[in-house]
Amino acid sequence: MRLYDYLPSGNGYKVRLLLTHLGIPFERVELDIVAGATRTPEYLAINPNGRIPVLETDEGIHLAESNAILFFLADGTPFLPARSLDRARVLQWMFFEQYNHEPNIATSRHWIQHLELTDERRARLEEKHELGHDALRVMEAHLSSNEFFVARRYTIADIALFAYTHVAPEGGFDLAPYPAIRAWIERVASQPRHIPITEG
Amino acid sequence: MRLYDYLPSGNGYKVRLLLTHLGIPFERVELDIVAGATRTPEYLAINPNGRIPVLETDEGIHLAESNAILFFLADGTPFLPARSLDRARVLQWMFFEQYNHEPNIATSRHWIQHLELTDERRARLEEKHELGHDALRVMEAHLSSNEFFVARRYTIADIALFAYTHVAPEGGFDLAPYPAIRAWIERVASQPRHIPITEG
Repeated sequence: MRLYDYLPSGNGYKVRLLLTHLGIPFERVELDIVAGATRTPEYLAINPNGRIPVLETDEGIHLAESNAILFFLADGTPFLPARSLDRARVLQWMFFEQYNHEPNIATSRHWIQHLELTDERRARLEEKHELGHDALRVMEAHLSSNEFFVARRYTIADIALFAYTHVAPEGGFDLAPYPAIRAWIERVASQPRHIPITEG
Repeated sequence: MRLYDYLPSGNGYKVRLLLTHLGIPFERVELDIVAGATRTPEYLAINPNGRIPVLETDEGIHLAESNAILFFLADGTPFLPARSLDRARVLQWMFFEQYNHEPNIATSRHWIQHLELTDERRARLEEKHELGHDALRVMEAHLSSNEFFVARRYTIADIALFAYTHVAPEGGFDLAPYPAIRAWIERVASQPRHIPITEG
């Protein structure tokens, strides 16, 4: 398998982490998204949406969208429950991640780390922090009475939400008010074959 | 089944449409999201994320996130293919819908229809139109050589994308430059048991 990737990306990290848990060897192709490497004609032929990650299977098939890739790879493994309602819950949290969490928490980190903070971005960052904290509060409430997000075990719902939550402080989010999230981050990081986001 | 819903919502419409296709009877509970009906303590007990739609099963289980609900209801029916790669493609398009499409196309429509257009919103609307057209171009390219999004047949990927695409003009998006999308809208609207978004 080949992974079109960008090392600082939490979306890329989700796939790297699951592939490593599963012991599936893969080749990483690093693309500098800030320099426009995902908007070249060559890359748009791989993903018309111009984003990473993309998984290339051994049959040469390209699959985009980090959480769709997680579902594809995890199906039939302990990382995705078999029961229909549990699968729906996994998806519920993964859609929450892409709609409520990533656009606020990941984008804040991306702007602070990689882009110039114009006055306009600074004003929008405030709104993103507010909405990001809303998402963190929803997670905190759930984790206050659950060790993991779904089915009482570590699944791709945890992987999807861990990716940008554990680096939220890099986007200006203080995790001190979220003890259940901090304990869950420790639980995820102590899973067998865990790798850090900085590891390719 | 019971559906917590808001009639103008495309996210609610996705679920109404699939339930109708499947011939599953359901009771609709209308919530005025603009008036804050999804932020009451009673509703937050049903969905801590304070959004519609939520599906309540006959067992009293609550499931949130429109696309997760679609996947749950469609599993084992012709609206969700059985093959692993096809399912991943369905999810790919549904995550694209929630990340690239909905926040731009649906939000533009919501602002124009229901909220006051402040100067700030007017400026952001321009950006949302730009990003929304990016999403429409990705769809147009795919539909230029495909009748439906996945597996050459009508699936929940089409339902998810149809919901806000067919009412995109209400958000200021002219669909004239997208002939493949317009032909696909006709194909979707001519499926058996189709209902319009205005039908509860």
